[in-house]
Order: sequence, then structure tokens, then C-alpha cells
Amino acid sequence: MGVSSEQSADIEALRAETHRTRRATVPALEDILYQPIPVLDHGFIRVIDYMGDDGAVVQAARVSYGRGTKKVSEDRGLINYLMRHRHTTPFEMAEIKYHVKLPIFVARQWIRHRTASVNEYSARYSILDNEFYIPAPENLAAQSAANRQGRGDVLEGEEAAHVFGLLREDSERAYAHYQEMLNENAAGGALDENRQGLARELARMNLSLGFYTQWYWKTNLHNLLHFLSLRADAHAQYEIRVYAEAMLDTLKRWAPLTYGAFMDYRMGGIGLSAKGLAVVKRLIAGEQVSQEDSGLPKREYRELMADLEREG
Amino acid sequence: MGVSSEQSADIEALRAETHRTRRATVPALEDILYQPIPVLDHGFIRVIDYMGDDGAVVQAARVSYGRGTKKVSEDRGLINYLMRHRHTTPFEMAEIKYHVKLPIFVARQWIRHRTASVNEYSARYSILDNEFYIPAPENLAAQSAANRQGRGDVLEGEEAAHVFGLLREDSERAYAHYQEMLNENAAGGALDENRQGLARELARMNLSLGFYTQWYWKTNLHNLLHFLSLRADAHAQYEIRVYAEAMLDTLKRWAPLTYGAFMDYRMGGIGLSAKGLAVVKRLIAGEQVSQEDSGLPKREYRELMADLEREG
Amino acid sequence: MGVSSEQSADIEALRAETHRTRRATVPALEDILYQPIPVLDHGFIRVIDYMGDDGAVVQAARVSYGRGTKKVSEDRGLINYLMRHRHTTPFEMAEIKYHVKLPIFVARQWIRHRTASVNEYSARYSILDNEFYIPAPENLAAQSAANRQGRGDVLEGEEAAHVFGLLREDSERAYAHYQEMLNENAAGGALDENRQGLARELARMNLSLGFYTQWYWKTNLHNLLHFLSLRADAHAQYEIRVYAEAMLDTLKRWAPLTYGAFMDYRMGGIGLSAKGLAVVKRLIAGEQVSQEDSGLPKREYRELMADLEREG
Amino acid sequence: MGVSSEQSADIEALRAETHRTRRATVPALEDILYQPIPVLDHGFIRVIDYMGDDGAVVQAARVSYGRGTKKVSEDRGLINYLMRHRHTTPFEMAEIKYHVKLPIFVARQWIRHRTASVNEYSARYSILDNEFYIPAPENLAAQSAANRQGRGDVLEGEEAAHVFGLLREDSERAYAHYQEMLNENAAGGALDENRQGLARELARMNLSLGFYTQWYWKTNLHNLLHFLSLRADAHAQYEIRVYAEAMLDTLKRWAPLTYGAFMDYRMGGIGLSAKGLAVVKRLIAGEQVSQEDSGLPKREYRELMADLEREG
Repeated sequence: MGVSSEQSADIEALRAETHRTRRATVPALEDILYQPIPVLDHGFIRVIDYMGDDGAVVQAARVSYGRGTKKVSEDRGLINYLMRHRHTTPFEMAEIKYHVKLPIFVARQWIRHRTASVNEYSARYSILDNEFYIPAPENLAAQSAANRQGRGDVLEGEEAAHVFGLLREDSERAYAHYQEMLNENAAGGALDENRQGLARELARMNLSLGFYTQWYWKTNLHNLLHFLSLRADAHAQYEIRVYAEAMLDTLKRWAPLTYGAFMDYRMGGIGLSAKGLAVVKRLIAGEQVSQEDSGLPKREYRELMADLEREG
Repeated sequence: MGVSSEQSADIEALRAETHRTRRATVPALEDILYQPIPVLDHGFIRVIDYMGDDGAVVQAARVSYGRGTKKVSEDRGLINYLMRHRHTTPFEMAEIKYHVKLPIFVARQWIRHRTASVNEYSARYSILDNEFYIPAPENLAAQSAANRQGRGDVLEGEEAAHVFGLLREDSERAYAHYQEMLNENAAGGALDENRQGLARELARMNLSLGFYTQWYWKTNLHNLLHFLSLRADAHAQYEIRVYAEAMLDTLKRWAPLTYGAFMDYRMGGIGLSAKGLAVVKRLIAGEQVSQEDSGLPKREYRELMADLEREG
Repeated sequence: MGVSSEQSADIEALRAETHRTRRATVPALEDILYQPIPVLDHGFIRVIDYMGDDGAVVQAARVSYGRGTKKVSEDRGLINYLMRHRHTTPFEMAEIKYHVKLPIFVARQWIRHRTASVNEYSARYSILDNEFYIPAPENLAAQSAANRQGRGDVLEGEEAAHVFGLLREDSERAYAHYQEMLNENAAGGALDENRQGLARELARMNLSLGFYTQWYWKTNLHNLLHFLSLRADAHAQYEIRVYAEAMLDTLKRWAPLTYGAFMDYRMGGIGLSAKGLAVVKRLIAGEQVSQEDSGLPKREYRELMADLEREG
Repeated sequence: MGVSSEQSADIEALRAETHRTRRATVPALEDILYQPIPVLDHGFIRVIDYMGDDGAVVQAARVSYGRGTKKVSEDRGLINYLMRHRHTTPFEMAEIKYHVKLPIFVARQWIRHRTASVNEYSARYSILDNEFYIPAPENLAAQSAANRQGRGDVLEGEEAAHVFGLLREDSERAYAHYQEMLNENAAGGALDENRQGLARELARMNLSLGFYTQWYWKTNLHNLLHFLSLRADAHAQYEIRVYAEAMLDTLKRWAPLTYGAFMDYRMGGIGLSAKGLAVVKRLIAGEQVSQEDSGLPKREYRELMADLEREG
């Protein structure tokens, strides 16, 4: 994982300090605060800070003067109700901040979520590290034949070896040329005193989308759930899904009632259209339904049958 | 101030509890956490929660692994630099949550700031308290003759007495009729067993804009500064400005370096247009400048001279 | 409806002008452009401007150089697909602007939708008209006994008459006192030359939440759909729902394919939680399911059975 | 410029069609609607659609029933006033949509502006073209020695030739290997029938940040001005500044009064801090001021003197 020993020391120093606070505090999240959780070959997520917990959701929904919580069972019922009826504003009342190290092509998907605050490491100002993503052998997938936006079988044998070779060599060459154009060695000195070195903001364009960047990313609980519902989904690209899955674990520590409601109503739930609902009612009534008489187009019919785990 | 003894007890219970945390903690803000700070005749603000501090701004600007702070003087220099050059994203990395009790007409101005999270007490669901705003005598201002959107002298004598009478009587009557239409007494019982009572969501429309509502309001430091720059400004209506001023005090406790930079660069600063800058250069060069040869329209010329504290 | 003859003349003048444009144009929406559509007793909505149509959604989804549309059936299929899979960004590519006149208590619900642009008539700067909302007899509903946030039967007879009297008298008195405090008559002159008149920004607080305000409100198609899904819903308060319904009609004119998809997948659809889906599968398999063995809490079980139109 | 003949035909077909509309229409912008304006070596911007004009700003500020415009001089005065006092909401009432082709490293800066709608060409779904950015010789700048985030002299002679060689060769190789890993030729056929081809969503990571992508980008006038104030600024990276400059030209066509106010109050204006204002007052009073007695840190003093075009 891409954390130097100096960075580890900074992290350990932070973890060693504790303070007294009157704020709502979540011991299960404090346990892992600041610690990098490895993702992919050089990436990580770290929870850097948080504000509020399940109680903040309850407090806001009740606009109460105290913490707002009653019995756990009542709080769970209220949170389930809010989630079920998409009363989303109380979930905006808790906040979390991550430090994330991730390949640039993943960052480009991630940044499309606009309802978050971001500070990214600047390659105009600083020099990127020589770290790039190479998929593990089991993730080197072929293009899907059925789905233009999906993966098929894992590549194997000669083709896999050839692809790994190209990815690795091109990345290493790109970085070597990046340094050469910058005319800087790792220690910050000039490689050649007779050259000026290309501006950092230009040299960076020789790096490929597989190189790692990093940022601070802060969002509220509602927007985090929205992010996770899209990025922890089976249709998300594997390389961003593993980040979302690691974040799901931190959510479970942070706000277990919200996590439970989210898994039930969002991640594990489905949406039925008016036409889909009509089909379901006919099926429940014991009718035979075929695609032709369902009122649904083929693809949608197939998707519905898959949701109901029936042959479409 | 509109806090019942039961609510005070909830607040004191929260204040009595402390927890251990690894998060950045601000003792000066912890001192007043949860405590209502009175504003207007029945209103208040209370800081309910916060995340981060000046160090969070520094940490994000540096994308560092540790807290990001070096010497106070270096942190101050960096925060001043960010404020001066409007590098706003690092200020998004700290967050604060308030509980606010405020007249509805103030709430209507306040809510125009969209970059915040809000949960308001629901008058569809619950019954509002009998609390309405009556200005203090020194704030009962006449319409400004010069500025359609401003206040003139304070009303006095008979006119003042008459206005106070109307405001108070109409508010009291409105509330009495609200209860009558609801057919509910303060204890929640029916006033008249033979009546059904009007729906709460309808009865509320008999209340005037001077009645108090309350909400949880959460925003990040950047958006808080933007709110304060508009609402603590001399052109803001008095009744919202006093809230903004109370919040400025909490900002000073929370993030003193940011507060200092904000007061210097925003609250105390001015903007010069290209044409205004040209006038300033001529003045510095010792030239006489009149409105006619300034290139500025009259009103803008007058505003500039006022900023420079010269006779326009 | 609250449109003066002068305002009508302005509207007719605008409707009489036409221009040549290369932009996508929607004749069915042009037909009603600028025309007030009455809502409630004095309110209206008017479509003031728009940008794009169904084709803009298709164009953005395909990132194409031309209009992006192929056959209507292909465009419909694509729009249905986007709606079904919540690929929302292409729907952000069309924009609409309304002029709305509405009671203040409705405006207070409406403004909670933050992803829109708003310019409201300023009662700091100008004087509000003497127009307030009085429900039609069939909408004067009692508080629901079952649902704290809902309506029950319509009030009738003496109770209704009493409520109407209170609403009307309090509104009229509030307005008369508003003018008296302002010391202004309808023509803008002073009522009493010896008085100064209270500042407009203060006098307005004597008006009740039933008075009408107006604003320009502009949003994109995606956010419009979100607004409509909440406000045209059966759980929305009647007084905002009628606005949403009038807007649904304008949507149907503007973007008929999107409207169709929206009605099928959102307005007419339901969400099933993981547990709800398990119940549906059991029902389809012909099993008997009771609330007790469903894994669902009572209320959620009842809601599911209502969705499936079965006795819960 | 990266527009194929087929794309040009689509564009010309759109330009040839005109429609009648009641909407506000801007002939000077219609003239260039849909036409690519070249930027950098393969990029462009095209205005695709727009809604409103200067009149929409005026209309919203006045909340008027008609177009809102009076005499041009009154409209200009109002727009200047709004700009000067940062009354920003009326500028949200006009909207514009661009189609942009740009290098990925430019797209990564651009996307940080969150208050816009974006649909980007998907390299998960489709194959990127073989187009990458190579700076013109006069833009191949060395790293600035004074400013870590800036450019110095232009590279020349052997060093320039070497850099150009590396950029070009690495880009060409990256693309060739991209195709090889995809196992697809330009016509979409397989290069080698015995290989499966790597998934598109993985293969793309071999491309460098200099490759071109494209998107639809839509924003309102207020957010456009904010974007331009940062990206048309002298401190912005050259490669994004040229896009902003091309957009400034389209703004001038679209909303000339707003453009004029923006150039005067934003682009050509400066901000003075409280301390900076104190220095200016002393200078106007004819005092000698040095950095030491100015109360300003060195860097800020130097910046202020540069703004006033005095020796610091």
C-alpha cells in the first residue's frame, strides 16, 4: 500500500492523541480513525473525521433539544421509516471525511458525484509518485460480448501475459519520461544542469490514467448513501466498487441503524414500474404471464424476471 | 428566551456528558456547545456539533497525512493566502451545525442560502408555540426615504405606541384563532368535543410571519463565511444581522485564524472595479478627480468615495 | 386569478412576438408560453422559457454531434432505459422556467428544493398585494385522526362557517393594519402626513402565511421530476399538489417521452425492500404470508399490501 | 480540429433548420450556434443551446410580468448594480450549453466546478479517438523558478525537440497498445481472432492525460461567470485559459450588458482587504508607505503594489 514510513509515523502520532469532547462519539469508528484500509494494489481509504451518528438523524427528524434518541428499537423504526419514504434531509445531518488514494481513471468516475467537497493533490504544484495500477490476474477481464459497458471472462495465458507486459512497460516508461522532461530526480535535484525542465503542469500529461492520485473527500451521510448505492452496485466498475465496499464497512461502524436500513431498502431492494407492478400482481394472482402479454419490452421483462429470480 | 425548563434539562444533560475522541477538538467551542445564545426576544442559536477546525483547512490545502499544521504563523499565512486568492475548497473541509429559533420572516431570508442542510420544525405535523417577534423600541424603524430597501429613523411617541399595539394584538388574536380552529388547548385536548378541528397544515396559515419557528441548520465553513458576509453586512436587515453576529462569535471560538482572515479580507475589505481602480490610481498620483471625469456613474462614484471616506 | 389588466397586456405583447431560432423548439409548449394557468383562488403558474426537449436528453446520453434523435421508438426506448436505471444526468440537459404566484405557506414547502434558481418578489422593497388564500369549501379539511401529518373529513356546517369567518376576517384585518403601519394607501400616498410609516421590511411581518407571493423559478428536467415525484404525490399537501399537477401538464407538452417514462417508472411505480421482495416472491410461489411471518413490521407490511392491493 | 466530415454534416444539417419561437432570441449567438470554435490542436467549443439573455436577468431582478427590459441604459445600470453588489441570483436565470472537446488533464481541472451539468463521452462504453495534445512550440514552457505552480521561459533548441519527441512517441505508443489490448482495429473488427480483447474500461487506463475527451456542459450565467473569473484569469493554466477565452467571446455575443459589467467589476477589478484599504487611504493622503509600516506581509504588499502598478 502506498504509505511511506514517514506518513505512517504521522498517522500513528494522530492516533495516539485523544481529547475530551461533548460531541456525539462513535467508538467503533474511533477504533479505525486515520488508519489506511488497503484497496487495489497501491490505494487506500482512511476515515479522517466525522460528525454525528445515527442519533443525529433521529435528532433532526424530531427537531429535538437533546440527542433525540429514545430506545434503540424506536430509533431503528424511525430510521427505517425515513429511508423507506425517502425522507432524506435528516441523513444530511451527519458528515464524514475520507482520505483516498486511487487511480486517476477511478477518480474521474468518482468526481462525477458533485455533492461532496474535494481537495486533490496537485500535479501542477507537486510531482506525482511512481505508482500505477496493475490489475490482479483475476481482474484482468475481457470485454463483455453482451454488454458494451461490461466485462466478460478473465484473460488468461499468453494474452494475459502480453497485456500485463504492455501495461507495466508503458507505465514505467511514461514515468521515466515524466522525470526526464521535468529534469528532476527523486531527491528534487536536476538530472542535467544544462536543461530547464518542463513545467509540472505540462509534464503530467505524459502520465497515464492508471497512475495514482489522492484526495480528501467529505460528504454527508445522505450523499454517501447515494454514492454507495451507485458505486457498490454490481454494475459499477470493479475498480471503484472495491472502494465503495471498503466504505460500506466504515458506514457499518459509524451508523449501524442507517446501514441496516440502507442494505434493506436500497442495496437489496428493487424498483417496480407501474407496468412491472401489474405483472407482479398477475403473478401473485396465479396467472401465467409471458413477455408478449406483459406490456413490457423484452429487456425490461428480462430484468424483472431476474429480479424475481424467475426464468424470463 | 424560548427554552422551556424541560428543554434546558435536556441541554444540561448533554453538556454533562463527555467522551474520548481522536478527532480534532476545539476547547473554546466545546465550552459553549449546546448552550442557547439569545437573539431577539424569543430566539437563539446553539452550536450543536462541529467537525474540524483551522487545522482541517490547512490539512486539506496541503493534502497531508497528519494534521497538516506547522507553526501557528505558517498556518495563519497559508489561511490568509487562501482567503485572499479565493481558494475556497479547503474551507469546505470543516463543518458546523446550529439549532436556531427565529421568526418566520427571518427564516424566509435565511433559507435562500441553498448550500446548507436544514430540518425545520413541521407545522403540518406539530403545533407552533405562542411566540412572536415584537421589535425592541430602538428597532422600530420608519421606512427609509432614500433607500427603498432600508430603514430610517426610529418611530416614537404615538405612532410607535400604535404600531406596537397593532403588532401585539394581531399576533395574539391570530394565535387564539389558530387554537380555536385547531380545536386544541395547550394540553392537547379538544376545546369543544362537538368540533373536529381544522387540519394543522391549514390552520397554520392564520399565523403571521412574525411567529417563531426553529430548525437544525448545518453547513461547511466556506458556506458559513459566505452566509456571514451577506448577513452580517450593514445592508442586511437588522433581524437577521443579529443572528449572523452571534454566529460570528462562534466562528471566532471555532476557527480563530479563519475568522481573522475573514474579517480582514471580506468583512473589512472592498472591491474595486476596473474603473474604480483607475480613479484610485489617479488619486494616489495626486490628481483631482470629479464624478464627471471619473468615468463612474453618480451612484457608483458616491459609493467609492464613501469607501475611501472622502466627500463624493 | 391574480393578474391585473396591465399584466395581461404585458403577457399578450410577449405572446404576439415571434422570432426565428436554430434551437430545438416545442410547438405544444410554445402554445401556452407566458400564459397564466390558474391554481387555487389567486395563484397561477406560467411557463416563461425553456431550453431543450426530449431530444436534448437523447443527445446528451449519446454525446452526439447532431440532435441525437433517431426514430421515436428508439428515443423512447433509450429514455425509458435511462429512467429505469436512474441514469439521471442526461435529464439535467433540458431546462425550464416558471413564474409562480402562490401562498407563502406553500412557498415555504417549495423552497426546500434547493436545486433550482429563484427570484422572489421582495416585501422588503415593495408592498404585497391584498390577496390571501381561502380554501374552497371542499378543501376545508379536518385534522386526520390516523395520520398526524394529514387531513380527514371536510368540515361542514357551523364549524366550517366559523373557520371561514376567522380566516377571512383575520386576513383582512392583517392587511388593513399592514397598510396602516406602512402609512401608505394603494396609490402610494401617505394616509396621514404626520406619520412616518413603519419600514416595509418590518410591516410585512403582520401578514399571515396565507398571503400570496410570487417568484421566478427555474430548474432542470431532472430536478423538476424530483420535485414532481414528491409534490404531485398523494402524500403532499393539497395546496402544493395542485401546483405540481399543473406543472405535470406542462411537462407532458414539453417532453412527452420523458413524461411517459416518469409516469410509468416513478409516479406509478413502487419500491420493494429486500424483505418486501422476499414476501412478493413467496406470494408468487403461492405461499400464504402473514405479517407475523413476513419479517416486516406491521406498518411496513400494511403499506406493502396496499401497494399490492391486498388486504394487509 | 477534431471534427469528422460526418460530424460536420450533422452540424450543418442542424444549422440549416430554423423554427419560430416566442422565446427571447439572440441573433448574434444564433449566428454561431452549433459551430465548432477551434481551441488547442484538436479541441473546440460549440454553443449547443441557450435560454434567456440580458433581459432574463432584468426580468428576474424586477420579478416583472413582461420581458422586464426598459431602456438599454436603464437595463445596463441595473445589471451593473447587481454585479457590483454581488446580487447573483438574477444571473442564474439564463442558461447555456456547450459541447467541448478537450484534453483529459484540462477536463480534470474543469470538472472541479460542480455547479454545472455534464455528460461525458464514455470510454467504458466506447473507444476513444487517436487524438492527443501536443503544445505549440511557443507554449512549451519550463517550470517557473519563482512560482511552484507556474511556467517560466519557453523551452528551445535541443531540450524542446527532446520533449516533443517524448510526448509524441509516448502518446502514439500508448494508443497503439490501447488498440492492441482491445484487439480492435479502427473499423471495429478483431486484430487477432484468437484473442478476446481487454475490457474497454480497463484498456483506457493505458492512455495518457493528454488524450482528448468530449462532453456536453451546461450551466447558468452566474456559474459561467464564476468559471470564467477563475479560468480566464492570468493565473489559470494556459491550456484551460484558451477555452475560457473562447467562451468569453460567446458571452459577449449572448449577453453584452452582463459581459460589460463582468469585465469591469470582475475581470478588471481587484479586492482590497481592510489593511490594503488603509494603505490606499494613506497613499491618497500623500503619505509615504513602506512595506514595514504598511501592516501587510511582504507578499501581500508586493501584490497590492502590483495592482496599483507601483514599485513594491
